[in-house]
Amino acid sequence: MTDQRVKFVLEEQDIPTHWVNLMADLPGDAPPPLHPGTKEPAGPDDLAPLFPMSLIMQEVSPEPEIEIPEPVREAYKLWRPTPLHRAWRLERELDTPAHIYYKYEGGSPPGSHKPNTAVAQAFENASAGIKKLSTETGAGQWGSALAFACRLFGLECEVWMVGSSYDQKPYRRSMMETWGATVHRSPSEVTEAGRSQREHSTGSLGIAISEAVEVAAQNPDTNYSLGSVLNHVLLHQTVIGQEALAQMAMAGEEPDVVIACVGGGSNFGGLTFPFLRRVIRDGARTKFIAAEPAACPTLTRGVYAYDFGDTVGLTPLMPMFTLGHGFVPPPVHAGGLRYHGDSPLVCALVRAGLVEPRAYRQNETFEAAVRFARSEAIIPAPEPAHAIRAVIEEATAAREAGEPRVILLGLCGHGNFDLSAYDAYLAGKLEDPVFSEQDLDAALAGLPDAPALA
Amino acid sequence: MTDQRVKFVLEEQDIPTHWVNLMADLPGDAPPPLHPGTKEPAGPDDLAPLFPMSLIMQEVSPEPEIEIPEPVREAYKLWRPTPLHRAWRLERELDTPAHIYYKYEGGSPPGSHKPNTAVAQAFENASAGIKKLSTETGAGQWGSALAFACRLFGLECEVWMVGSSYDQKPYRRSMMETWGATVHRSPSEVTEAGRSQREHSTGSLGIAISEAVEVAAQNPDTNYSLGSVLNHVLLHQTVIGQEALAQMAMAGEEPDVVIACVGGGSNFGGLTFPFLRRVIRDGARTKFIAAEPAACPTLTRGVYAYDFGDTVGLTPLMPMFTLGHGFVPPPVHAGGLRYHGDSPLVCALVRAGLVEPRAYRQNETFEAAVRFARSEAIIPAPEPAHAIRAVIEEATAAREAGEPRVILLGLCGHGNFDLSAYDAYLAGKLEDPVFSEQDLDAALAGLPDAPALA
Repeated sequence: MTDQRVKFVLEEQDIPTHWVNLMADLPGDAPPPLHPGTKEPAGPDDLAPLFPMSLIMQEVSPEPEIEIPEPVREAYKLWRPTPLHRAWRLERELDTPAHIYYKYEGGSPPGSHKPNTAVAQAFENASAGIKKLSTETGAGQWGSALAFACRLFGLECEVWMVGSSYDQKPYRRSMMETWGATVHRSPSEVTEAGRSQREHSTGSLGIAISEAVEVAAQNPDTNYSLGSVLNHVLLHQTVIGQEALAQMAMAGEEPDVVIACVGGGSNFGGLTFPFLRRVIRDGARTKFIAAEPAACPTLTRGVYAYDFGDTVGLTPLMPMFTLGHGFVPPPVHAGGLRYHGDSPLVCALVRAGLVEPRAYRQNETFEAAVRFARSEAIIPAPEPAHAIRAVIEEATAAREAGEPRVILLGLCGHGNFDLSAYDAYLAGKLEDPVFSEQDLDAALAGLPDAPALA
Repeated sequence: MTDQRVKFVLEEQDIPTHWVNLMADLPGDAPPPLHPGTKEPAGPDDLAPLFPMSLIMQEVSPEPEIEIPEPVREAYKLWRPTPLHRAWRLERELDTPAHIYYKYEGGSPPGSHKPNTAVAQAFENASAGIKKLSTETGAGQWGSALAFACRLFGLECEVWMVGSSYDQKPYRRSMMETWGATVHRSPSEVTEAGRSQREHSTGSLGIAISEAVEVAAQNPDTNYSLGSVLNHVLLHQTVIGQEALAQMAMAGEEPDVVIACVGGGSNFGGLTFPFLRRVIRDGARTKFIAAEPAACPTLTRGVYAYDFGDTVGLTPLMPMFTLGHGFVPPPVHAGGLRYHGDSPLVCALVRAGLVEPRAYRQNETFEAAVRFARSEAIIPAPEPAHAIRAVIEEATAAREAGEPRVILLGLCGHGNFDLSAYDAYLAGKLEDPVFSEQDLDAALAGLPDAPALA
């Protein structure tokens, strides 16, 4: 395969100048979030205790594009533009006529796509005079991205880390501390929300969110920062898809199918929204697949309803597919995908039939990840391993159809901190959990009283 | 700092086409390695049980440049060219007029510069019909690079991992196994050398080398692979320095000082040799600093003499600075720098006064690494932390002199697998060992009987 290009690389000047706001092109009207008390549409003022007004304006903006502040583009230069790879070796391993490309976000210092929004949020908060950001983290990807971003813009950073991850992933905690953050094991004793959940000693993302939100709501110089789900978070991630569009053009190809994993939706939205906008505007025929864990099947088994973003019920009610805010998914290694809800924007696209969700079991995703690592060398995080599973399905379908379909994969992070899971998989000892139907029924029965969604 | 470039990025076509063989330009005659039995100069045939003839010819080649085989350049494309960064944020943090650049090799899948030679060695062995490579690894950087390279070229890989690292760094073992390698804890029971060293239960690099060499010597379809020290290994690493030369030209600057850490010398040689060749040929005035641990101060406290490369005494005698092949350095986290000897080429340059060695204590290197991580975001491995310490000294000297000196740092790997050491440092619990003078005297008394070096 001499002289074939493996990577498509952009220069710093090619870092996008604007973010893509898909809200402006979304088919139909997006239902608004609701105030958790009044159940009336939540306005900018309702969010002001937690977020700076500039981010709130991004959250509700009708503009199709929003300019990226220059200090944020400067920070992006530390690791962006990220490369687009042609997966020649994986194609050979799969004996497929498909052309497989992957956009790799694992080269950022925290090792994932998360800093794309972390630096934007840290900048806007610092500009607004905020001194500290509070947040939650599951496996630690988001917490380390925010720790890194706060360091760049001179903010303090306080992280509530889900108890089970805190115990199992001490390296992620050390990484956050190396960048200067303070890390609490959640549930903690320093918040009311944490103390109220003492009996759930291994914690959950929903509990950790409640703790971080409580601290931000009570301290005027502290704001809250969320790593996914919200419109402005997905907005910031669209640098991924814009670069990928330019790089696919360099490769002279159009993707027939774009695949990414979905937890809260920021990786998925970041890669797909620039492509989806073309589909919506120009009627391009691109397929979009959202890969999620069978242990936490929000898009494939959830209901479309208003629900809280956290466990305790402090956040606005969001219109989304949800398993119920009380749902506690079984412990899979893809901690970033263990969330009861999903981005309202991504959910609206699934409802509109523009995005196809698929759910995978843990062992089949690790099987796919090991095949990827043994051909393409990068060891993927457990989250994008779900998307890789879908890529292998699509590449196999292309072989069966005898068609050179073009597949674009979002490879949002490396698995260097997840090698104990690979160890378990290789030893044949990796668990393969599914959720309990009884737990799901109970969680859905606990949905808040709110207007039904069309 | 709007519009200032942070990274200087090359295209795949700019990956060097040749390696730089500094042997051809070395001042004076290089003393030959000696056969461990006869003490006569070792010829190519003496190395044939361990290495393919193509690598042996590279080891002894007088040619100034050696062409890189096309399949190796193709493999390089998976992660090369690597970026050169301008450390704007570190310069500001240090309040220095110095311009600091770093060449970052941590973006390779194994996370260090090691695959530059691993893929070259795997290719040459596969071309020679070899089925398996055996090797040793300390902290795991080299073993994981070779596991990855063997996978690319269809070879089996068997690794002896120093016992203490095997116990402390299970993630590095999992990484090697994910790429399909077999990993033994050294000393192991599967070799004579291992069984003879049972009492040293935590192992050492020298013992692990003995085990890997023994297996290769006894099996005709198995060869041995070394990750540093030898001429051909340093040769392969010169892609680093050649890219850095081109990137410094893109930046429009000439380095006044080039700094890298030294364990066996492959990272140091890889970065510096293309620059050193200019100094030797054109009399350019560039300073070169080799940073090593005070706990294993080979270049600053060793003697220049013939010594074995391994503990048991199976390898040829190499002309080098050595602490004695029986020297066991205290356990510092920079496992890649815990070696009693050093590359004969690098040692000859130190002898010739072209390279200045400096030794640093563990805590001062971690202090430097944390400053780097908090300004430049990348968390460095403990090995290049030694070089960062020297960079900070040079940047401080530039401030005191009021001169905008240009400093080039070799940042050879990330510290994602070394976060427990950062944890200890941040908690004030990191040990700061020095070696015992008594142990050094004893080890030097055990040097083999061999001709003295001029």
